[in-house]
Amino acid sequence: MSLFTKHQTVLNKAIEALHARTFYAAYPEHPAPDVYGETADADGQVKFKNQLGKKFEELKQPGASAWGGQEESPYTQEALNISYPLFSVNTLIDNSKKAFHLWRKVNVQDRAGILLESLDRVKKRFFEIAYATMHTTGQGYMMAFQASGPHAADRALEAIAAGYEELNRFPEKAMWDKPMGKFNIQLNKEWHAVPKGISLVIGCSTFPTWNSVTGIYGSLITGNPVIVKPHPGAILPIAIFVAEIQNVLEENHLDPTICQLAVDTFDKMITKELAENPEVKLIDYTGNSVFGSYLEALPGKTVFTEKTGVNSVILDSVEDADKAAANLAFSVNLYSGQMCTAPQNFYIPADGINSPAGKISFDEFAQKLAAQINSLVDNPKAGPFVLGAIQNKKTSKRVTESETLPGKIILKSRTFENPQFKNARTATPLVVEIDSNKKEIFSKELFGPIALLIKTKNTNESIALAQEMAMKHGAISCAAYTTDAHVREKIADEMALATTPVSFNLVGGIYMNQNAAFSDFHVTGGNPAGNASFTNPEYVTKRFTWVGHREPVKG
Amino acid sequence: MSLFTKHQTVLNKAIEALHARTFYAAYPEHPAPDVYGETADADGQVKFKNQLGKKFEELKQPGASAWGGQEESPYTQEALNISYPLFSVNTLIDNSKKAFHLWRKVNVQDRAGILLESLDRVKKRFFEIAYATMHTTGQGYMMAFQASGPHAADRALEAIAAGYEELNRFPEKAMWDKPMGKFNIQLNKEWHAVPKGISLVIGCSTFPTWNSVTGIYGSLITGNPVIVKPHPGAILPIAIFVAEIQNVLEENHLDPTICQLAVDTFDKMITKELAENPEVKLIDYTGNSVFGSYLEALPGKTVFTEKTGVNSVILDSVEDADKAAANLAFSVNLYSGQMCTAPQNFYIPADGINSPAGKISFDEFAQKLAAQINSLVDNPKAGPFVLGAIQNKKTSKRVTESETLPGKIILKSRTFENPQFKNARTATPLVVEIDSNKKEIFSKELFGPIALLIKTKNTNESIALAQEMAMKHGAISCAAYTTDAHVREKIADEMALATTPVSFNLVGGIYMNQNAAFSDFHVTGGNPAGNASFTNPEYVTKRFTWVGHREPVKG
Repeated sequence: MSLFTKHQTVLNKAIEALHARTFYAAYPEHPAPDVYGETADADGQVKFKNQLGKKFEELKQPGASAWGGQEESPYTQEALNISYPLFSVNTLIDNSKKAFHLWRKVNVQDRAGILLESLDRVKKRFFEIAYATMHTTGQGYMMAFQASGPHAADRALEAIAAGYEELNRFPEKAMWDKPMGKFNIQLNKEWHAVPKGISLVIGCSTFPTWNSVTGIYGSLITGNPVIVKPHPGAILPIAIFVAEIQNVLEENHLDPTICQLAVDTFDKMITKELAENPEVKLIDYTGNSVFGSYLEALPGKTVFTEKTGVNSVILDSVEDADKAAANLAFSVNLYSGQMCTAPQNFYIPADGINSPAGKISFDEFAQKLAAQINSLVDNPKAGPFVLGAIQNKKTSKRVTESETLPGKIILKSRTFENPQFKNARTATPLVVEIDSNKKEIFSKELFGPIALLIKTKNTNESIALAQEMAMKHGAISCAAYTTDAHVREKIADEMALATTPVSFNLVGGIYMNQNAAFSDFHVTGGNPAGNASFTNPEYVTKRFTWVGHREPVKG
Repeated sequence: MSLFTKHQTVLNKAIEALHARTFYAAYPEHPAPDVYGETADADGQVKFKNQLGKKFEELKQPGASAWGGQEESPYTQEALNISYPLFSVNTLIDNSKKAFHLWRKVNVQDRAGILLESLDRVKKRFFEIAYATMHTTGQGYMMAFQASGPHAADRALEAIAAGYEELNRFPEKAMWDKPMGKFNIQLNKEWHAVPKGISLVIGCSTFPTWNSVTGIYGSLITGNPVIVKPHPGAILPIAIFVAEIQNVLEENHLDPTICQLAVDTFDKMITKELAENPEVKLIDYTGNSVFGSYLEALPGKTVFTEKTGVNSVILDSVEDADKAAANLAFSVNLYSGQMCTAPQNFYIPADGINSPAGKISFDEFAQKLAAQINSLVDNPKAGPFVLGAIQNKKTSKRVTESETLPGKIILKSRTFENPQFKNARTATPLVVEIDSNKKEIFSKELFGPIALLIKTKNTNESIALAQEMAMKHGAISCAAYTTDAHVREKIADEMALATTPVSFNLVGGIYMNQNAAFSDFHVTGGNPAGNASFTNPEYVTKRFTWVGHREPVKG
């Protein structure tokens, strides 16, 4: 049985879900023993621990020039001391150039089979990846498991499905038969989906697999060799993905360098050298806007970026203020505000929020939000695991500095003790009240656990500001609370113009930060927060070019 | 009956053809009386003549600041003296900004109905457009009719079909139902295809409708208002399209400025001012590479370009050298080499071309090609009509200057008399032999009737040069003659890598210059000849953004 046949059912379901945009999860998100096996968690943890202080020797790439690695755990604030093979840019490019001509000639079904098989292999390592993610990103265990494991695998599958479908959208061959009166002109036409060339996928420090696998699998399914350049602070999770892709390639007698890992160190970053290499035709990137915009401006490249944004919450009217505050408090606390979808700017009318129980004043709602944040933080069974740790020292510094913002502090940031990791770098959300005329304060991303409660004249001003921020500075998510159908319509329309998806009236166990595979176009690509979406048709069609040849039919 | 219902059959056929990539022509290309009516040709000519020396008063755009127009007929070398309303960039942008919010709210079916109806109206004016095209571009009558009339309308229909399909590809709404163990999270999701904003379509002087309608209709079907900026030398053909679009909009109680014409004059061009306006989000462009690359580099715009290229003919082996030479001679003569798909570089091995009749030497083939060119030029019933006239004086000058190229002249360019227009600006093809080591000569576009016969070491060098030229300098078409299956495969593969479509072994009534709607991805977008193709999915999906909103299902 071919790998394609083996995985065809999953592929078909994924394509179906992609079109229906309904819920689909090929890889269960519950790290339960009945799903992944009794010992899977413990085994994964042991594997992760065994890797510490050692060489990562799973890669099948020739020509390493040295070994290196500078990952550090936000939970222990100690170096992981894992070293990876380092390669010169020339070696990486030379390997990829050769691999290109092999991989592009592998047919689409075989490519799909190999890539789907690699996800099956990765599935067996979800727990190992979870611990690797925790100790590089600072994510809590549950998020580290879900985001880096099953959700990432779903996103990878989604990219495979989208690519597979686009590549099969037009016929390989057709006879073109044009009546000319007394005779017909008949041409045999053939169409080739020509991959663009070497693909560079640049990872980030907070979501090392989830944000990278779409580009990796999107490029691979369309026939491009990939060089994965992880963030030097978060290598191991994606290294495991790459190693498993290489395993399946080798088993199928293909060159493992079709997908390479390009580790670098903080003191000698190779990202620019790779990105500027003329052989690199495709670039996927998640990270800060300055570097993203530099990449977008490189001539002769097709670039997919997810950059930073200023996400808004518009509070107009609520069914239940406490439930709304609880939901938003969770969003603010989740991974200590280090998600690209986390809310930052809360627009609240100066005269308060309508509710069935009467008007809730600005200050009342602010206190409710602060109380809900505290309540979660101080819950020892939940707080430390929801908040996780702070990936980067700079984020901690930003939180401290933000206490001097020109506004009333509603809630101070503090540290808290993680029962498992005494040395964890932690910070609870800082909440500051800002007047709506202080646009310079809230018109930039303050990455980390920082929430600004912006006092507006009314909901119209709230909407206008949320739209303006998204259009000028980018936005990936927006939450809105309103019980008024007209206001809802206005928010939906104005934020759609700013190409920002809105989550309306979320309460309970679903949060504005969460974007699902097969259903949500993560990052619309239409505002400055990024120029591409996971996974619309463009996300894969831009990775190859249709070329048609033709020849007269022989009589 | 709605306009959508009226035209639904044509739309469905177009979508079907787009997917099958087979022959389809919604608008018959034969200017025959039985198709368009006994008096259609004569009536069209009268209408065109009546427009000369007068104001073009069909547009429904308010706020003209003056009237102007500088079109000149390449056939009479006299001014047409047609004047058009001129508008300030501010007026155009202000009109478009208002129109945007009206047009984006018109549903996709209604947009499609209106646009298809406009093509039906234009169909009644194909002959008028043909004469307008002749006397602005210098095209021969038949090409002017076909390219600016039915073929352009087919391309417009193709863009409507592609847009309609993409907009209907994903559901408008879906219920997302996620099992969480003891309960389900249910979200109502809704998706909006949000148009990008004002679309600027910049026309060229040689194909004023064919090259512009795809962008116009592609932007309109996806909900964007359009500003059409024609080349100041070729306004009338596209002005008629815009007038008919405005007619149908007005009849349907919509603002005619949803599609505006932005005429300018050579002494006061407004293209840059329009393109750089921050409200302009989409730009379609056909023209020279310098301006095209400037447009592509403008920040914050989605830009579709068709620029210049260096098209190749690879001659390896032929079934019948005379038939091949005749076919290529027609391609060289057609519209005096002023097509973006016209061949320029003919790669011929120094030791000749194989054929069943034995080796044909380089010189022999050169003489055959020259003889076939002359034979067509000197055929009074065909020559003047196939060659047409030279649109731009600069092209005539380029032909004269090229006689000093460092190589043997195989055929000198000359003028010829057009029986209908004694003052026509004409030039027959210049054919020059160039050695393959003189790369600096043949690595740029020599627009106009100029063919270079490049003497190569062998077919491998021919292929390598054709590929290099396409990759470095762009190519839109390529012809290859070979009777060897291995050579064919190599050419197909190497030129596909340079994303250049190859026409193999064309003889008879089909030419490398011709690209058909619904079948050929005109301009692949993968090499420097342009960054976009007519009409792959990207061509329309890049004109809007998917935005999804969501809200919990009410219990």
